[in-house]
Amino acid sequence: MIAKTPKPPYYAVIFSSVRTEGDNGYAAMSDRMVELAKQQDGFIGVESARNELGITVSYWRDLDSIRKWKENAEHTVAREKGRRDWYQSFKTRIAKIERDYDFERNSDEQ
Amino acid sequence: MIAKTPKPPYYAVIFSSVRTEGDNGYAAMSDRMVELAKQQDGFIGVESARNELGITVSYWRDLDSIRKWKENAEHTVAREKGRRDWYQSFKTRIAKIERDYDFERNSDEQ
Repeated sequence: MIAKTPKPPYYAVIFSSVRTEGDNGYAAMSDRMVELAKQQDGFIGVESARNELGITVSYWRDLDSIRKWKENAEHTVAREKGRRDWYQSFKTRIAKIERDYDFERNSDEQ
Repeated sequence: MIAKTPKPPYYAVIFSSVRTEGDNGYAAMSDRMVELAKQQDGFIGVESARNELGITVSYWRDLDSIRKWKENAEHTVAREKGRRDWYQSFKTRIAKIERDYDFERNSDEQ
């Protein structure tokens, strides 16, 4: 759910997308990419939600681990399929997390 | 949908949350907060999606405009209601967008 992330600074890849119609192998590949990302050096966590717009935020130790993930061969093939089959449009933003704070309801409340 | 954002650098507030049960006035307040945010100096755009996890990313010109939005009186009241009524847990991350790139399918394809 909410990714457990370390004290900043760390990095995020914010991937916002609008899908094409139909699955066309998307769901299986999406699951596979999460599994593969988790195995990468520097991967911290990932959060995802989708309605008409989908947002996936993956968290990384540094820019170098993001670069290596981008160059991963299987990920590169998946991105090519994304442009060809799965996405109407998308935007990828690389961000440095400078500060964070959180809230957790006490377990004795609702 | 996908927010139109300027050439980096600019800033993002990544708000990841898990809701409590029931609406309890959440939907109306959420709409109101988007309307109010749009009126703030330095606001660029916002993207949202929710399944079990909700992710809202708002984009801002600089840290000062994020700070002023945080100090907005009506927003402060809404955040207090959020902690009291609407959220099981949340995490807010302040990030500097350093780089971005996008994809738009040609209108003659699917």
